[in-house]
Formats: sequence, C-alpha cells, structure tokens
Amino acid sequence: MELPLVYVLNGPNLNMLGMRQPKIYGNATLDDVEQICIQNAEQLEIAIDFRQTNDEGELVSWIQECRGKAKGIIINAGAYSHTSIAVLDALLSVELPVIEVHISNIYRRESFRHHSYVSHAATGIICGLGLQGYALALAAMADLILEEDN
Amino acid sequence: MELPLVYVLNGPNLNMLGMRQPKIYGNATLDDVEQICIQNAEQLEIAIDFRQTNDEGELVSWIQECRGKAKGIIINAGAYSHTSIAVLDALLSVELPVIEVHISNIYRRESFRHHSYVSHAATGIICGLGLQGYALALAAMADLILEEDN
Amino acid sequence: MELPLVYVLNGPNLNMLGMRQPKIYGNATLDDVEQICIQNAEQLEIAIDFRQTNDEGELVSWIQECRGKAKGIIINAGAYSHTSIAVLDALLSVELPVIEVHISNIYRRESFRHHSYVSHAATGIICGLGLQGYALALAAMADLILEEDN
Amino acid sequence: MELPLVYVLNGPNLNMLGMRQPKIYGNATLDDVEQICIQNAEQLEIAIDFRQTNDEGELVSWIQECRGKAKGIIINAGAYSHTSIAVLDALLSVELPVIEVHISNIYRRESFRHHSYVSHAATGIICGLGLQGYALALAAMADLILEEDN
Amino acid sequence: MELPLVYVLNGPNLNMLGMRQPKIYGNATLDDVEQICIQNAEQLEIAIDFRQTNDEGELVSWIQECRGKAKGIIINAGAYSHTSIAVLDALLSVELPVIEVHISNIYRRESFRHHSYVSHAATGIICGLGLQGYALALAAMADLILEEDN
Amino acid sequence: MELPLVYVLNGPNLNMLGMRQPKIYGNATLDDVEQICIQNAEQLEIAIDFRQTNDEGELVSWIQECRGKAKGIIINAGAYSHTSIAVLDALLSVELPVIEVHISNIYRRESFRHHSYVSHAATGIICGLGLQGYALALAAMADLILEEDN
Amino acid sequence: MELPLVYVLNGPNLNMLGMRQPKIYGNATLDDVEQICIQNAEQLEIAIDFRQTNDEGELVSWIQECRGKAKGIIINAGAYSHTSIAVLDALLSVELPVIEVHISNIYRRESFRHHSYVSHAATGIICGLGLQGYALALAAMADLILEEDN
Amino acid sequence: MELPLVYVLNGPNLNMLGMRQPKIYGNATLDDVEQICIQNAEQLEIAIDFRQTNDEGELVSWIQECRGKAKGIIINAGAYSHTSIAVLDALLSVELPVIEVHISNIYRRESFRHHSYVSHAATGIICGLGLQGYALALAAMADLILEEDN
Amino acid sequence: MELPLVYVLNGPNLNMLGMRQPKIYGNATLDDVEQICIQNAEQLEIAIDFRQTNDEGELVSWIQECRGKAKGIIINAGAYSHTSIAVLDALLSVELPVIEVHISNIYRRESFRHHSYVSHAATGIICGLGLQGYALALAAMADLILEEDN
Amino acid sequence: MELPLVYVLNGPNLNMLGMRQPKIYGNATLDDVEQICIQNAEQLEIAIDFRQTNDEGELVSWIQECRGKAKGIIINAGAYSHTSIAVLDALLSVELPVIEVHISNIYRRESFRHHSYVSHAATGIICGLGLQGYALALAAMADLILEEDN
Amino acid sequence: MELPLVYVLNGPNLNMLGMRQPKIYGNATLDDVEQICIQNAEQLEIAIDFRQTNDEGELVSWIQECRGKAKGIIINAGAYSHTSIAVLDALLSVELPVIEVHISNIYRRESFRHHSYVSHAATGIICGLGLQGYALALAAMADLILEEDN
Amino acid sequence: MELPLVYVLNGPNLNMLGMRQPKIYGNATLDDVEQICIQNAEQLEIAIDFRQTNDEGELVSWIQECRGKAKGIIINAGAYSHTSIAVLDALLSVELPVIEVHISNIYRRESFRHHSYVSHAATGIICGLGLQGYALALAAMADLILEEDN
Repeated sequence: MELPLVYVLNGPNLNMLGMRQPKIYGNATLDDVEQICIQNAEQLEIAIDFRQTNDEGELVSWIQECRGKAKGIIINAGAYSHTSIAVLDALLSVELPVIEVHISNIYRRESFRHHSYVSHAATGIICGLGLQGYALALAAMADLILEEDN
Repeated sequence: MELPLVYVLNGPNLNMLGMRQPKIYGNATLDDVEQICIQNAEQLEIAIDFRQTNDEGELVSWIQECRGKAKGIIINAGAYSHTSIAVLDALLSVELPVIEVHISNIYRRESFRHHSYVSHAATGIICGLGLQGYALALAAMADLILEEDN
Repeated sequence: MELPLVYVLNGPNLNMLGMRQPKIYGNATLDDVEQICIQNAEQLEIAIDFRQTNDEGELVSWIQECRGKAKGIIINAGAYSHTSIAVLDALLSVELPVIEVHISNIYRRESFRHHSYVSHAATGIICGLGLQGYALALAAMADLILEEDN
Repeated sequence: MELPLVYVLNGPNLNMLGMRQPKIYGNATLDDVEQICIQNAEQLEIAIDFRQTNDEGELVSWIQECRGKAKGIIINAGAYSHTSIAVLDALLSVELPVIEVHISNIYRRESFRHHSYVSHAATGIICGLGLQGYALALAAMADLILEEDN
Repeated sequence: MELPLVYVLNGPNLNMLGMRQPKIYGNATLDDVEQICIQNAEQLEIAIDFRQTNDEGELVSWIQECRGKAKGIIINAGAYSHTSIAVLDALLSVELPVIEVHISNIYRRESFRHHSYVSHAATGIICGLGLQGYALALAAMADLILEEDN
Repeated sequence: MELPLVYVLNGPNLNMLGMRQPKIYGNATLDDVEQICIQNAEQLEIAIDFRQTNDEGELVSWIQECRGKAKGIIINAGAYSHTSIAVLDALLSVELPVIEVHISNIYRRESFRHHSYVSHAATGIICGLGLQGYALALAAMADLILEEDN
Repeated sequence: MELPLVYVLNGPNLNMLGMRQPKIYGNATLDDVEQICIQNAEQLEIAIDFRQTNDEGELVSWIQECRGKAKGIIINAGAYSHTSIAVLDALLSVELPVIEVHISNIYRRESFRHHSYVSHAATGIICGLGLQGYALALAAMADLILEEDN
Repeated sequence: MELPLVYVLNGPNLNMLGMRQPKIYGNATLDDVEQICIQNAEQLEIAIDFRQTNDEGELVSWIQECRGKAKGIIINAGAYSHTSIAVLDALLSVELPVIEVHISNIYRRESFRHHSYVSHAATGIICGLGLQGYALALAAMADLILEEDN
Repeated sequence: MELPLVYVLNGPNLNMLGMRQPKIYGNATLDDVEQICIQNAEQLEIAIDFRQTNDEGELVSWIQECRGKAKGIIINAGAYSHTSIAVLDALLSVELPVIEVHISNIYRRESFRHHSYVSHAATGIICGLGLQGYALALAAMADLILEEDN
Repeated sequence: MELPLVYVLNGPNLNMLGMRQPKIYGNATLDDVEQICIQNAEQLEIAIDFRQTNDEGELVSWIQECRGKAKGIIINAGAYSHTSIAVLDALLSVELPVIEVHISNIYRRESFRHHSYVSHAATGIICGLGLQGYALALAAMADLILEEDN
Repeated sequence: MELPLVYVLNGPNLNMLGMRQPKIYGNATLDDVEQICIQNAEQLEIAIDFRQTNDEGELVSWIQECRGKAKGIIINAGAYSHTSIAVLDALLSVELPVIEVHISNIYRRESFRHHSYVSHAATGIICGLGLQGYALALAAMADLILEEDN
Repeated sequence: MELPLVYVLNGPNLNMLGMRQPKIYGNATLDDVEQICIQNAEQLEIAIDFRQTNDEGELVSWIQECRGKAKGIIINAGAYSHTSIAVLDALLSVELPVIEVHISNIYRRESFRHHSYVSHAATGIICGLGLQGYALALAAMADLILEEDN
C-alpha cells in the first residue's frame, strides 16, 4: 500500500537557516530540518516531498500541484506568509488540510509579521517551537489524514 | 492589413479555474475563457495573445513586452491586483489602454480584496460578470483602440 | 411576447453630463446616454426604463418599484454610490440582478469615491469606460436575464 | 381631554417590510406594524401619527413638525440612522423625548450599521426585538410623557 | 405547572445604584430594580432569579449555570459589556435568548462605552430607558419564550 | 443694467433657526437672515435669491439651476455639508465662485462636523460669526464677481 | 476717547507673501495686507497693532501681551495653526474674541493643513478669501467688540 | 526521581467544551482533554497539574504559583488571551517556558480573537489542531524542559 | 481623634514584586512597600488600609467599600489600569480623591500600557518613581484631605 | 560643600498661571510656584535654577546647558510636551534624571494632551497634583540624586 | 590584490528606465546607470556586479549570493521596496552594509511609496538624486568598506 | 568669478553632536561636520554658509534669507524635520534645490521619526550615512546647480 503523501513547503530565505540571525532561528540548517522531517515521516508512515523556494510564483505552483496528489500540506511560507494573497488563494484552491509552521514566534517580532495570510487557509498553526515545530506538524497531519479517511 | 494586437494576461491561480471554489468562480476553465476570447476577438477583428502565470516577475515582464507591440492590455491579475506595486509600475510604464477584469465581485469578498493597485493604472474595470467580463473587456478595448486611432 | 424590462437608473448630477467637468466625464449628454441605451436594448431585445433623479428618496422608490416588474437594474448612482445605505438597502430588497456603472474610473479619483455601497448589492461593476459602460452593462444584463430564465 | 400625540416615524425601505430579506426582518408588513402600534397606543391612552418615507428631507420636515404639537417621537430611521446628520439635527431641534427602534439587532450586522446618529439624540434605544420593539417603545414613551408632566 | 425561569444578571457597580452618579443613573437602588422585576415577572407569569456581582468570573459561571435550567437571560453586564469576551463566550455557549439592558444611553457617553461584546450575543438590546428597561426586557423575554415554545 | 445675481442657499434645519439650540445658533430666525442679506445685497448692488430646503436632492437641483444664471453661490448646507458628495458634485459642476457659511464654529463642535465636503468646492469659508457671516459672504462675493469681470 | 485696540498677528512665512507660491497666495505683499488693515480699521474706528514673526515663542508672547490691553485678536498663524498647541493655549489664556484668517482655502490643500489648533480657540474663521479676508475679519471684530460692550 | 511538573491551565468557558458551539470546538469534553493530557504526560515522563477556571484573578494566581514549583506552563487562556494583560504579566513574572494552546484557529474567527496577549509571553503557540493541540504542547514542553536542563 | 483613613490598593501581580522582572520593578517586595507606606502615613497622621489582590472583582468591591469610610484612595491597579472599565466605574462611584501610582514609567513600555482607565478618575498620577511613588502619593493625599476639610 | 543643582524648567504659557483658566490651573501664580520650589529645595539641601520661557528653542538650549552642570531636571514643558521632539532630543542628550510635572491631569483633558514626548525621556511623571507636584518632584529628585551618588 | 566586490541590484521595471514616465525618472536608460557605476567604481577601486530583475525570488537569491562573496550591496528594489518582506529578510540574512537608492524622491509620490521595507535593513538611503544617486552610493559604500576593514 | 553659495543649515540638538547618544550619532562633533563641509565645498568650487540653531523661527528665517542669495540649501533640520510645517513652508517659498540630510537612518528609529515634512520640499534625501552624508549632499548639490545653470 502506498503511503499518504504530504508536501513540506518552505518559502524565501529558509535556505539561509543556520547562517541567518541565529539568535532568532538557531544554528540548525534546512538540511537538518529535512532530516527531522524524513525521520518523523517514516515513523508516522507517511511520505513527504520536502522543498524550498525563494520564488512566490513557484510556491504557488507547488501548492497547486498538490491537488489530487497529496493528502496534506505543511507550509512555512516565510515572509510570503505576511504578503502573499496568491499563496493564500493557492491553498484555498487545493482543498486539503494545511498546517502552517513558523520556527520563531512571529507574534513577538515586528508588527508586520503578526498577520499571516496563510493562517486564513490553515487548519492549524504551530509557531515558536523551532525545528520541532515541523515534527509536531507532521504528527498532527498524520492525525488529520487519518480522520479524513474515517 | 495586420489586426491590432491585445494581450490578455491572467495572474496567479487563474489556471485553477473550474477546480477552485466553484461557488465563487463557476465551473468553466481557463481554456473556456481563452475560447471565449478568441471567438470575440475574431468578431471584433483584433488579434489576442492569451497567457497565464503564477509568477509576479513574469507578469511584469509580459506587460513590459507590450510596449510598442500591442495596442492594449486586458488583465486579470488575480491576487497580484491587491499586492503588487511592481505590476502597477509595469502598466504605468507601457502607456497603453488597460482594462482590468475580475471574474467575481471583489468588493463583496474579504476586505483585503477591495483595493486593487491595477485600478490605479486601468482605463476601465469590469468585475463580477464572470467569464463574460472578458468578452465585454474585448469589446471595450476594440472601441478604445478605434478612438486612439482617430 | 413581452420584452424583459430593465431599469436604467441615474443618480444626482448625471443630468449635468456634457456640461460638468468634461475632462472627467466627456462631452456627451445624458440624452446621448439614453440614445445609446435605447439602441443597444433594441438589439438585445430588452425593454428599458431610463431615468435620472437628484433625489436619494426618489432613487430608493424607483428601485423598490422594480420588484416584480423588472428583470434587472442598471444603476449609476453617482455620488449616492458613496454615501447612501438607503440605496443599498433598496437594492438588497428587490432581489434582482444589479449592474453598477460609473462613467469615470472612481478608483483614480478622490479617496472618498473609492468605496461604493452599491457594490455590496451589485452582481457586476463596470467603471471607467465612459458611455460605452452602459452598452456593456445592457449586454451583460441580457445574459444574466437569460441565465436566470434557464 | 385630548390624548397626548406621539409620532411614529419610519425611514427608507421600511415600506418593503415583509418582502425584503425575511431572514433579517421577518414576514410581517409595515401595515402589521401600524396595527400593533394603534392597538398598543389605544391601551396606553396616547394618540399616534404613523408614517413612512424614503426621503431624508421629508423625514427631517416631519420631525420638525412635531415641535409644539407632539409629546414624543418614536423613530426607526432605517438606513438614515447611519448616514443622516440632518435627521440628528432635526431631532435635537425639537426638544422632545425620542425613542429609537430597530427591528433587527444592528450590532450583529455589517459594521457600517453599528453607528447611529439618531442614538446621539435619543433618550432610549430598543433594537433586535422585531415588531414588538414598537410596542415596547410606545409603553416606554407613555412613561416618559407621564414623567415629563409631573 | 412550573413557571419558565429567567435569569436577571447584573454586573459590576450596579450594587452602587442610587449612590453612584445620580445624574446618569437616577436615585433608585438595585433593590428597587429587583422589586420592579419581581412585580413584572409575576404579571407575565415567569419566575426570575435576580443577581449582582462585581466579578467577571462569577458572571461567566452564572451564565453557564442557565444552560438547561433557564429559558432566557436578561443581562446588564455594566462595564464588562465593553471589555469581556469571556462573558460573550459564556452567552454564546448557553444557546438561549438574551436581552441586554443598560440603564443609561451608552451611545451618548464616552466612546469606550459605545461598543458592547454582549450585543454580539444578544437577541435584543434596550438602553437609556432607566429602570423601566428591565420591565420592558421582561415583557420582551416573555414573548420570546412563548415564540420558542410554539 | 441688470444686477448680478447671487443664490443664497440654506440646507436642512436652518428653517428652525431661532427655535433650535439657541446657545449654539442664537435667537434670530431665518427671516432675520434673509432681511440682513437683502439689505446688504442692495448696498452692494447685487440681486439675491434666498432659499431654504430640508431636501438634499432639491439643494442639488437649485445649485445646478445657477449655471448660466447666477454669478455666485453663498451656501450654508447645514448637515449636508458633512455628508453630501452630491452637493459637492453639483457645486463642482456649475463653475461659479462659492462661499461657504456656517453660523457656528463647526470646528469646536462634535468631530463629525469638522469635515465639510462643501469646502472642497468653495473659494472661501466663513464660520462662527453668526448671522454676520452672511453679510461678510455677500461682501466677499461682490468682490469676487468684480474680479471675475475684470 | 481711545479707539478699541485689535492685534493683527501673522505667523511664519507670511513675510514672504507676494514672493512665495503666487498661485496659492497671490502677488500682494504683507505690506499690502497691512495697508488694507489700516484703511479698514480707520473706517471701523478701531486701532490696530499689525505684526509678523517666524517665531512660535514670540507669537505666544504677543498673544499673552493682549490680555487687558486689546479688545480682540485677528490671527493668521500660518503653519503654526496646524502644529502649535502653545499658540492655542495662549489664545485660551487671554479670554478675548479671536478671529482666525487664512489667505488660501486650507481645506483644499494637503491633508496636514486641514486641522487648525487655532480654530479650537477662535470665535470665527475666515479662509480662502485672500487679502480681503483681513478686511472682513476687522469688520466682524468691530461687531464682536460692540456686542461685548453692550 | 521526581518527574518534572507542568501546569496545564484552562481559562473561561473551557468547562463548557463539548456542549458549546460544537462546530467550532468539537464534541469532546474538558474531561477528555484531561485524559489525553494524563496519558501523554505519562508517556513523556512528566507530571501535570490540570485545572480550569472562569476567573481571571484565579488564573493569575495559579500562574504565579508555578514559580519555583513547575518546569513549564501550557495555557489555553480562552477569552482572557485577548483581553488580559494581568495574565500576560503573571506569565512574564514566572520566567518559565510557556506554550499557548487554542483548540480552534483563532485567526479564522472574529477579528477581536486575532490578538493574544498570551502570545507576547509564550515560547510557542499551537492553534487550530483541536484536542491534539494539548498532546503536541506536552511533547514540545518535554523537549523545552530537556533543553533547559542541558 | 480618629485619623483620616486612606486605602492603598494594589492590583494583579504586585504580590510578585521583587521576584518579577527586577530590571523594571527593582528588588524590593510588596512588604517593603507596605512598610514605607506605614512609616509615611504615621508621619503624616493618616491611617492606611494596605491590600493586594489579583482579582478585578475584589478590587472593585474594595473600592466601593471606601465610600463613607475612607477619605481617599491610592491605587496601583497594575494591569487592570489598562483594561478595566469596572475599576474606573467603581472609582467614579465613590466620589473621593484618587491618586494613581505606577512603579515603572508606563509611557516608556509597550504601547498597550500607555492608556490607563484609572487616570480618567484620578486627581493625580505619579509614575516611574519606584517605591517612593507611594510615599509621594501619601504626602499628596494628606494635602488633598486637608484641602477638602477646609 | 556645593549643593547639587537642579533645573526647574517651565514651558509656554506657564507665566500666565493664576490668570489663565483658573478652573484648570488654580489661582496661584508662577511666582508662587517658584517660592514653593525655593522653600522645598532649601529643606532638601539642593540648589535650584527656576526658569520659564515661551520659546521652544530656548527651552532646548536651557536643557542642553544642564549637561555637566546640573544633577537633574524638573520640567513642565506645557504645550511643548505634546509637540516637541526637539525638547525630547535635548533631554535624551544630557543623560540626567528627568522628572516631568503637569499641574493638571492631562489625561482628563483634550485627547491631543494625552501624549507627551517628554515622558519618553523622563524617569518619573507627576501630574494633576497642582503646585504640590513641584514639591513632590523636588523630593523625588533629591532621592534620585542620592541614589546616583551611591 | 583583488578589488572589493559590491553588488548593484535593481528591481522590477528599472529595465524600462528612459522609456517609462520620463517626468519622474528622466531620459537616461539602465545602461547609462551601469556606465556611471562602472566609471565610478573604477575610480573608487571597487569591483561591481550590476544586475536587474523583475522577479522578487531572483532578487532574494541574488542578495543571498552576496554572503561571503561581496563586501556590500547597493540596491534599488523598485516596487519591491514597498511590498517585499522577503527582500528585507534576505538583506538581514547576509550581514553586509546595504545602501538603498531611489532615483525619484519616493516621499513626494503616492503614499504607498512612502514606506520601504529595504530601509529597515539599510545602513543608508539616498533618494531623489537621479542617476547620481548610484554614484554617491558607490562613494559611500567605498567608505563603509574601508571603515569595516579598519 | 564668485562661487555659488550653498547654505548648510542644522537644526536643534545638532550642536550636541559627539556628546549625545554616540551609539546613534557617532563621536564626531558639529565642528568636524563643518570642517568636512568646508573641505568638500572647496574641492567642488562652491561657497558655503554653515549654521546651527535650536530655534524653529530662526531656522525659518535663515531659509527665507537664501532667496536670491544662495543657489541651494542643504538641511539637517533634526527634530524639526518631523514637526515643523513652518520649515516646510519656508523651503517651498524660496524655490531652490534642497537636499535633506540625516546622520542616522531615521527609518530604523522610533516611528515618530519616520515622517519628515522637509522631504515634501526636498529634491533629494541622504540619510544614515553619518558625517559623510554632508559630503555627498554637497557633491549632489554641485551637480544640481550645474544642471540648473545649463
């Protein structure tokens, strides 16, 4: 039996993880994030497709690609969370469970990071819990997929 | 004699038409929109170049490309209508008649859809009239081109 | 067979068309608008009742009058678009397709003209396309009536 | 002995009651409202003058007319509640007890219905209690008139 | 047959009635209010449970207590009307008709008294009519209970 | 030689002058205002047409009537100053010098009286100087007409 | 008998009159303004003290100086109208009639010129009527002094 | 060896879980939440103290109690999240890791639920994931305690 | 002769003084504050009743208790300063001199601490002067009581 | 041994004390304030330099003068508190303890008096306590100087 | 010895320079800008990498590329200055001196151009000085690099 | 041949340079700034008049003095940039090229420093580049003067 597929999508500057502002984001890199996701997915018996892009249009296209192919989307849209209605519209168009992840607690940073368009389309949001946020999101997603199937 | 050329540009997620939120956007697809445009253009004796992209930068470049080549632009910039000053600047730079189209009535939706940067550069706006909005926009554009020539 | 009836209602100062601020509104008069409407209606096989008033209360009453009598309303409520909740309520009460028309692009003018209460009740909006906006509105209305009948 | 006179004034679109948006306003008509008012007034030994108009200016004039003639005003100014400083000024000018009535709970509807200029001049406000709101207003007015006389 | 039970709940500082700012609230005390309520309830054949508290948490608990026990709530939440989402949530949770009462006209006082969270959950609102507001609320509640039963 | 004609237009509730809120507006009536205007006009060798209406639409129509007939407009639009874009549009359409008058100093009253749409179209504004404001406006208008003629 | 004294105070940049932005302020100089004031004052039998300063503190001190010495203040505070609470406080402290003058119509210029602190303390305001505004202000002040004396 | 203690604190109306608005909060009760927490805590080898209160002051006191006694706080402050600076101050005073939980996605509800004071003091936030949010919070907290200890 | 009584009331989290955020609040405890108050009161010949509560309702009740019993209130309402209209109403109801104290300068902290409802009812405010603020408040209160008695 | 020097600086219109709006500011003059300051300073063994100016620039210069010369600044900047970033910058540049004084409670007056730039630079604020505020400020300053010296 | 490298990055529509709105941007083309930069860089002994893109994602990637490779970034992000938090985050992540350039004075244009996210990350900003702005930015950057090296 | 004259004007607190907040403004003094200006001016063959004042009125007068005497103004208006419309008006009145300089990046400081009235009148703006900003401004001004002459 095929494992249910979950897209784990990362937006702009997440490829800089570990280099960029370690006080806010810690020292781990995006590769570390991917490893955590792979290990947790294995345990949860789900397949993942892990990607990063700096490009809003590419992020939109990847989300659209999920339709009819994936069972859920975990997304850390980075700065596009706060500015992209296009990303929001893509998420609304695929009709899948969506979990939004942020490594830092965006509500304790500059006010322009307090609003996320992604949150309008998300089932759930996990933020401020560092890399572990991805692991928790995968666990939550596994549950949501199970629920949906029942 | 060469027919006057009009670009019909579509922004992010319009490729999802027919699949995405049918209550808001109906069941027709972007191919249907293109067919309607081709038929109406033929009748109006104008040529069209019909395109869609999820990418803000590509949309900007397509608009720039119109300069000195097309006689007018019909644009449904989707979500970029509300967030992209870059698209607005591109439209301002080409000095052509522009007609903005929206399939749904954006003024009856979420408040972040009530403002459109494209409207700052548009000659006219047609919204809420579904696919027919494109046909009307072509008719209006044919008139604007005629006026300009006189 | 009786032709379907459409009210074409014009609000305050539209009787000044042709005299008033020709840079914004052009040189054609309201009579010219009426002629265009009559010709287009004939072609579309719809009957029209074309009126203008400076009076908010009269505009409200005319809209109410449509109930059970007309198949649709085309309305250019002029300044009342921006200030009249009474006009909005009247439009909501008649349960008919409504198309809002503005001769100028209200989104490129003073900020107090950017919001229209009429838009809350309108199916579609056409603005900035001059007198032709009325012709397009009639074409769109003919389609909406046809749809409704099917 | 002459009964004390109370004006019961109704603003725009209240003549559409029973037809218009029954989910919000119920199925009773304005005639039903008038009957309720007449019956209650009789019981309270007050005379009423019950009117409706779509016209802001006429509403202003009716309010002015109360001066020196009526003992109180019950007013459901409909949409003019939210937009008319002229109605407010008229109410302030007559120096009579005023009770504002709204059939629906305006504070649970669109935000532009949350503010009422009439409330600035009203002694009391009753809203959301349907047709019974008029009966309660008459009872309250009878008391206010009695108080004033003592 | 048992009489239908209505809670009449009073929030902070209403125990100071008669002492506090008589220009705004009059000279009657909360005991007077209770007497009026008892007399009116008797006439309307409903039972009442009349209480006052300065404590937001206690007010929340009393509202919760109504569930499955009372037929309706009349509430003058005093200052908590303007600040307590907890009270609003409690009212939403009990699924009963709610009538909000204010002794003074809150819309003619400081701007921070113009918004009431209670209004979001209330069927109807009566304000500015002094102690009589409670009597009117009981009458209206009796009607609402009757309606519900039919 | 015919005297230059000036319209002196008064908006809603100005017919209540002398009765309404004498602390704000004084004890003189609108007839007194008219007498002052007639006397001053005579002295300045201008003819006046002095009117009052409670009706926004009538005020709009009177302003339109000035076109090609009067040399200037003196207007105290009362409450419509603050709410009527229709009055503003009418004033813009007639292309005449306009002087706005207010009897009281609107900038020391409620904040909703601080903004006047009429001011957008007015050459000059005189407020807070009571009935004398009309006399000053006539003097200023006489000068403006003289200037225009030169 | 001594003539009643009126201060005519001019704020920053009014010494540039005639040089500065003639489209807005015209070609007359501050000396011309002074001449007009002297002539009008003579006719009205009042004495004037005409001054200009670029200094907020000096303007404040001149206003204070009026107390017990002058019968009224005519003030064109220029830019300090919009920014100086100190000037407002000085005007409030002297308890004299104050007439505010602006040469241009400040309500048709940038939005930061729409609010004037001086208006909070002024009896009357005259704006947009050019140099004649000073003459009108003197006439109005003569009346106010007369009234006060009676 | 003693297990590290974590407080799991629930604010107003969470005792209504399962009864209140099941479309938003589901059918499980607060007892179910407690059971989930107990089972997960056992697995994670942490001890929990699970409580609910409708009282802001009691919630503040419980948080203060954690100081020097617990290793972390998991808090679903319900409506107090949005209104209580006192709860925020208490959380800031105890200097412990805090995880904020909300059963529903507060960013898709009324705008007054979009801001949480608790978020200012929280390390991480989990919302919209139903009861499972508590389980995830416990897992995250176990990690945070481990980190702190290293 | 009985000494005049002054209530010194402390709101939420002030019991954490000395433990909580010493950079903002210093190292002294609430007991230290009480000692300072007792010593100063003795010297000023006034009696004090010094209390702290985390509970808004209890704070309201304590304030009400002052009526007819105390000569003045010194209050540091902590976080309730910024959120509690109930505390404001209680202070307004007792008709006593009130001095508001804050240990830190609330105007240099987060913007949600810049507004205090208590300030609407306070005679005077002392903030940012640490524990000495209480001593100064007592001195000022002694003066206010003396004044009142004369 | 030289006494520590404290500047007591007064801004615009404080020279009008005793004359100006006695309901707000009382009947004492600025000389009375100076006497109170001299007496209290003597008792506290500090020297004072007491000044007043209407001039923002002079106030800025006096503050700058304190650097390296005075031990602290007590400032009642009057209207400049609300408008002068220059005064704020001067206070920030001298690196001395600053106590802000206001005779009236600025938070109960017009909203434009609720914000003070001086508060951004002040250690402490005392307002609403009349002339005594200066005495309290001197006492508090003596303490602050002592602390600094230890 | 290798010259220090500086990226000169240009955002959307800057490739239209010389064609687009010459009143605002002048007649020079982006090639002219590049020539100026090359000449100035030579003189300053720095190497430059001059690029333009319409694509937000590409701009982000180019900035990231600078890390560990370039000594500084000169950026005219065009419209993305006002809308792109992704560009801001990229600039923050590379930890290099950044100089923001705008050809026109953005503070004299539409209000949506007054805020720049780039300014949050920039050391310095040069705007309104046309093409020369690039030359000045290079001179300033040369200094900043020198400083950094010392 | 006479060198073209440029005024270099400095506003309040710039005389404190080097002493005041060195983290923001560095250690150089205003004399250092003047030396840099003199040296650069010499090289650019322009004459400068370098001044500083704490006084808004004096700054206004100095700007006015430039008319017909100087070829350009370089201005660092310090805090008056953010508060002085009088300075703006003076700059508008002299019709000369203006370059605004700020030593620090005002857009990364408190929000009340983000808006500059000077920017409304400036040709160009240079900020955040420390003392070098003056040198760059002189270079840019030399170019602007040259352009003007051609």
